[in-house]
Amino acid sequence: MLQPPCISIVQYTDRLRRRIDVALAARCEPGDGCPPVLCEAMRYSLLGPGKRLRPVLVLLAARACGASDEAAMPAACSVEMIHAYSLIHDDLPAMDNDDLRRGRPTCHKAFDQATAILAGDALLTRAFEVLAGEIEPPRVAAACCATLAEAAGACGMVGGQADDIAHQGETAHPEDLGRLESIHGRKTGAMIGAALRLGGLVAGADTAKMVALQRYGRCLGLAFQITDDLLDVRGEEATVGKRLGKDVALGKLTFPGLIGIPRSRQRVEQLVSQACEALKPFAGAGEHLEALARYVQERNR
Amino acid sequence: MLQPPCISIVQYTDRLRRRIDVALAARCEPGDGCPPVLCEAMRYSLLGPGKRLRPVLVLLAARACGASDEAAMPAACSVEMIHAYSLIHDDLPAMDNDDLRRGRPTCHKAFDQATAILAGDALLTRAFEVLAGEIEPPRVAAACCATLAEAAGACGMVGGQADDIAHQGETAHPEDLGRLESIHGRKTGAMIGAALRLGGLVAGADTAKMVALQRYGRCLGLAFQITDDLLDVRGEEATVGKRLGKDVALGKLTFPGLIGIPRSRQRVEQLVSQACEALKPFAGAGEHLEALARYVQERNR
Repeated sequence: MLQPPCISIVQYTDRLRRRIDVALAARCEPGDGCPPVLCEAMRYSLLGPGKRLRPVLVLLAARACGASDEAAMPAACSVEMIHAYSLIHDDLPAMDNDDLRRGRPTCHKAFDQATAILAGDALLTRAFEVLAGEIEPPRVAAACCATLAEAAGACGMVGGQADDIAHQGETAHPEDLGRLESIHGRKTGAMIGAALRLGGLVAGADTAKMVALQRYGRCLGLAFQITDDLLDVRGEEATVGKRLGKDVALGKLTFPGLIGIPRSRQRVEQLVSQACEALKPFAGAGEHLEALARYVQERNR
Repeated sequence: MLQPPCISIVQYTDRLRRRIDVALAARCEPGDGCPPVLCEAMRYSLLGPGKRLRPVLVLLAARACGASDEAAMPAACSVEMIHAYSLIHDDLPAMDNDDLRRGRPTCHKAFDQATAILAGDALLTRAFEVLAGEIEPPRVAAACCATLAEAAGACGMVGGQADDIAHQGETAHPEDLGRLESIHGRKTGAMIGAALRLGGLVAGADTAKMVALQRYGRCLGLAFQITDDLLDVRGEEATVGKRLGKDVALGKLTFPGLIGIPRSRQRVEQLVSQACEALKPFAGAGEHLEALARYVQERNR
């Protein structure tokens, strides 16, 4: 149960989000030798409206394991930087070719393609600079860098995106469900899992808690992706803030496209239950992670 | 002086290059969960023909400071991964739009743009995974990650590339020399400096040696860039392995374009002298770094 004064998970994460936005802005400031336009493009994509789900997860995992927001904030910023870079590159004409993101022109529309490619590269690099330079002690910083790189790289997020693009336009069969879960497990799930593990690493969590965070993250990540697919089919453009029906137009595999809307919702419920189940080692300290999982299930229904 | 059996710096670095290529291939192997096409594109760009100047510098700096090749090899691989990623992204149509690199089709020509963007992202990420996961002790690994990220990021290599593109097509004035040196100091020099410092860090070098490596790197990096510009104007296509006269066609600032060929050569000589001067703290242990600087001056004359 949330402790009194009882506030909803939405209010709770809103507060965290405001602190995260201040911390992100401070780590991407103009005037430090970065070309002004490049810095502007980085800030445009990093500080624009967004859920900040991944950095919120870093802070919630760190709190659940007993660490302060202050200790975990560099890790929270680094995962959001990776997320922002991945959106910039995914939106490029050669990739998903999107012109609207979070209700605004995508980076290459607001600037140009070269600037967008470089702003993405710079944010990806900055994520590691922040982790390596700010996380203490250095032993934990190195472990965080290794965890983030593994999740963000060719066997994680980038690999998932590559497979997602490679299979666009193919006719969907029900037996593709395993492949779809594998793609999303890497494209979205790997970074959600990394966010949780970074929170645990910063807090010096024991193996049982690290395993629990990993399990929770796997379920939450997939549940989050399925609700994203559902929103793409059913949400309202103004609420979601990006062009809808895009997945279908691109011929992308989606959960509702493959197993229908009711079964997709069922799968989300099952995954959220499993996510909450995984939090047992935390007892009361896992309440906010639990509330967040239940919120993912409910969002925009 | 090179120790007997006396071999030339070319033979000496050729041996290092072969060891580096084996180490690079081992750190970018197929079959570990990376989508096959993505892995193929990464290997195409990482393992293709190349001078391997940056990883050679890591090993030479480490040797000059008393570390083994084995200890320094992960750092050597990481700088070459950053270099390979930067070439892939720089060659993209939205950037320098090059179709030939090291005598072969560029990555986006051999594969496609989406794969090239993702292969670049994956190599950039893998560089940090290798550093963070393999350099010992973790304290040094964290310092290496911070050094690499700073050099490769928005205030270093990526920023230099952004400025380089931003100023294409402008009419050149002699007073642009400072800006040109600033662009190349970041675009090429920052990573050459980082390569040398990583070698020093792995070896636990003292401050005097780290400063010396930094100074040597600054001079070598600029000398290297000027000779590159000279080769673009005067070299033979088959020797250089990329389309020549490209800089002029793109309206890029170059040293020969700005100060003429004789003064560009003079500047190289001056920089190489300064680079060798900087090596004094190493006495005999700096001989290979010195020979390499002299070789940069001589290449393809």
